Amino acid sequence: MMYAHWVNGTHKRKSVFEAYFRKLPFGNGYAVFAGLERIVGYIGGLRFTEDDIRYLSEQEENYAPAFLEELLQFHFQGTVHSMKEGALIFPDEPLIRVEGTIMEAQLVETAILNFMNYQTLIATKASRIKQVAPNDILLEFGTRRAQEADAAVWGARAAYIGGFDATSNMLAGKMFSIPTKGTHAHSWVQSFGSEQEAFDAYAKVMPDEVTLLVDTFDTLRSGVPNAINTAKKLEAQGKKMVGIRLDSGDLAYLSRQARKMLDDAGLDYVKIVASNDLDENTIMDLKLQGAAIDTWGVGTQLITASDQPSLGGVYKLVEIESATGEMIPTIKISSNPEKVSTPGKKDVFRIIGKNGKALADYICFPEEEAPRNGARLKLFNPLHPYMHKYVERYEALPMLVPIYVNGFQVYTLPDLNEVRRYHREQKDLFWPEYQRKLNPEVYRVNLSEKVWTSKQQLIAEHMRPDIE
Amino acid sequence: MMYAHWVNGTHKRKSVFEAYFRKLPFGNGYAVFAGLERIVGYIGGLRFTEDDIRYLSEQEENYAPAFLEELLQFHFQGTVHSMKEGALIFPDEPLIRVEGTIMEAQLVETAILNFMNYQTLIATKASRIKQVAPNDILLEFGTRRAQEADAAVWGARAAYIGGFDATSNMLAGKMFSIPTKGTHAHSWVQSFGSEQEAFDAYAKVMPDEVTLLVDTFDTLRSGVPNAINTAKKLEAQGKKMVGIRLDSGDLAYLSRQARKMLDDAGLDYVKIVASNDLDENTIMDLKLQGAAIDTWGVGTQLITASDQPSLGGVYKLVEIESATGEMIPTIKISSNPEKVSTPGKKDVFRIIGKNGKALADYICFPEEEAPRNGARLKLFNPLHPYMHKYVERYEALPMLVPIYVNGFQVYTLPDLNEVRRYHREQKDLFWPEYQRKLNPEVYRVNLSEKVWTSKQQLIAEHMRPDIE
Repeated sequence: MMYAHWVNGTHKRKSVFEAYFRKLPFGNGYAVFAGLERIVGYIGGLRFTEDDIRYLSEQEENYAPAFLEELLQFHFQGTVHSMKEGALIFPDEPLIRVEGTIMEAQLVETAILNFMNYQTLIATKASRIKQVAPNDILLEFGTRRAQEADAAVWGARAAYIGGFDATSNMLAGKMFSIPTKGTHAHSWVQSFGSEQEAFDAYAKVMPDEVTLLVDTFDTLRSGVPNAINTAKKLEAQGKKMVGIRLDSGDLAYLSRQARKMLDDAGLDYVKIVASNDLDENTIMDLKLQGAAIDTWGVGTQLITASDQPSLGGVYKLVEIESATGEMIPTIKISSNPEKVSTPGKKDVFRIIGKNGKALADYICFPEEEAPRNGARLKLFNPLHPYMHKYVERYEALPMLVPIYVNGFQVYTLPDLNEVRRYHREQKDLFWPEYQRKLNPEVYRVNLSEKVWTSKQQLIAEHMRPDIE
Repeated sequence: MMYAHWVNGTHKRKSVFEAYFRKLPFGNGYAVFAGLERIVGYIGGLRFTEDDIRYLSEQEENYAPAFLEELLQFHFQGTVHSMKEGALIFPDEPLIRVEGTIMEAQLVETAILNFMNYQTLIATKASRIKQVAPNDILLEFGTRRAQEADAAVWGARAAYIGGFDATSNMLAGKMFSIPTKGTHAHSWVQSFGSEQEAFDAYAKVMPDEVTLLVDTFDTLRSGVPNAINTAKKLEAQGKKMVGIRLDSGDLAYLSRQARKMLDDAGLDYVKIVASNDLDENTIMDLKLQGAAIDTWGVGTQLITASDQPSLGGVYKLVEIESATGEMIPTIKISSNPEKVSTPGKKDVFRIIGKNGKALADYICFPEEEAPRNGARLKLFNPLHPYMHKYVERYEALPMLVPIYVNGFQVYTLPDLNEVRRYHREQKDLFWPEYQRKLNPEVYRVNLSEKVWTSKQQLIAEHMRPDIE
């Protein structure tokens, strides 16, 4: 397609693309934007090597040498605006806006979608899990089950943004300064003559970091009693065991029993870590059953977002330069109505009411004065335009910030702890009704009247009425 | 855990680990082994850099300098046996067997599982899709929705092993010589004044490779008629349009209508490509509804294995050297009975009956003479040992082949087309009953009597009877 534009002489036409998704994942009330750091790294480093060019010319003999030469010289010179990582985001609002030649804007599409889709999905899943266990320690344990290596590393990062406290992935720890946590495996126990011997050996080597996996043979009759023995030996040295870990069986029952056994032995300071195919639903159920679990190790279900393993973000052309140099809004119609795109280059504002809480998001053209000037806003439901209200006293937070301007990176990527903090602050702008796990209130994303009218006009231009 | 072994002086103990999974994905009758090439690359290149060591020493002040020095010198010196990529594989049989010091065998665990789990999952999903459309062209279109970049590339490779014909991922094409295929996007059409203009421009530039996306505005009233016009113009130049692509709406109805319109225009050679959240179930349904689709573009559902996005492979210690130098079989018990591991270092044979079809897989210790010597085999159901049969005339195919011996790679990685061919040949060894998509016959994996008896003995040693 790039080559077709090149031959056709249209590859340098200016264009505006917007990335967005159409439906919230997991039935959640919001998603958590993530992936920007990865995208910035990709765009900044995007080049074609001699080797790439050789491969392309082998694939397609017809490529003109001048086209391949242009690829070799390519670097991104466009302008990118984006949501900040950690922001709460909603369907059908522009999350990343790319302005540039159609060639460069199109070249970055696939990577932008891949990175945004995955990290946003995992940050959202993590935020849901945090929602049901706000005061517990959450550990990301998914590397073995992640969909390949990148997912393990960037997924651990996204989980941390969404509220997790640590990861077992050392590379993610190293790359992003995420705290790392892990325990020993079953093989540690199996490699000793007895479980007691294995526990004691571990405590001897790591006296300050002893969390013992107690389900290699029999949790309540072997694992926990042996762990208690080890903890007592540690006490004799003035040390305190950190915890025990349950990894199979009925975690509600086993944790209550283990808690009682530990408490009866005077070890009320020993924490209980649980893992085994956990997600926000099992964690909430376990809590309702009175499980005595302090720390949750969440693996497969988080790192693959197993109940919905893709976000479905798309990247659509919203404006294109005409042959005469004007920018023309453009639309993609569909027989699936929710797939119709919204034409024109757009901004997104979060409208904060006088109580300090988010009222709605508002999408308008950059040249519109409201809400920037604080003028009265009309908020209406695009599906049912008769439902509307006016807002007079509000603060309008611009959500899209400049990342690249004409190829220059103008945005300083924040430290990951800063991203995590921003996410928490953003969540505080929303009433709990929007944040609950099941059947949350729908937070409204409104189009300005100008945006809405322009969309209706373009639909009318492209649709021919059905005559049967 | 590694450091604990090091301090404890047990890190050089010889060990045997086996990787396997417990349950077939998607309700399928088999899985397709994949991931070995990636694993071989990982093991061969596994080193700790100065930078890694610095990070580790910052994380844990207690690490002895001699331990960190040993990491810096580390390279894998163990022995690995594995299934060949493309093999049909089944639950609870060793797929990869690693022999080495406990340190090295443990170090490679996470990567082996990550790579094996993901690629095996996607190859299996692809093989299921191939099953319902054996004579159609299958295109892998998932990069935008893959779980990060590695998944896109290695997933495209796994899909090719499982029977797909091409990918839209150019990097995968370049890395593995997979054919690449794609069409233009909606943005191509949107960037022109009209759909007709866009189609004609594309045909002018790429006259031999014209597949037109016809659903940007209105498939049957705009897209298909415009595509027919373009095809006629191509005919006038002695060229033939390749196809049209449907990407939304009711694909059964639209494809039948489009087929009729094309045929009525004398364009019976123009193929129809369809895409839009397809998987083996929607493809089978569309075929039953008489959809006139020649080529299937499969994205999200394949590349994320969305109905079951993880395989759940595990890596368990089966033998460990004792303090006196003997190799001791070891077990992991669990209150979830299906999680009990099978002790001892084991081989896997595929038993082929006199009709040339696979009868069962047979797991035995390496020192057992049958089935190598062709002696009569007793096959029995481990859950119901009274159900058994004898086999006398058979061929026993050894399934685990040596990959690394004492750190030296002894296996030459086959070309990907060779892997794909091997997969097809292996499938031919199985009756169709094992291959059907829904409720397949269960193919049996049998333990030799020695393996079974040894497992029962170790269970008995570790379990204390329940007295209530």
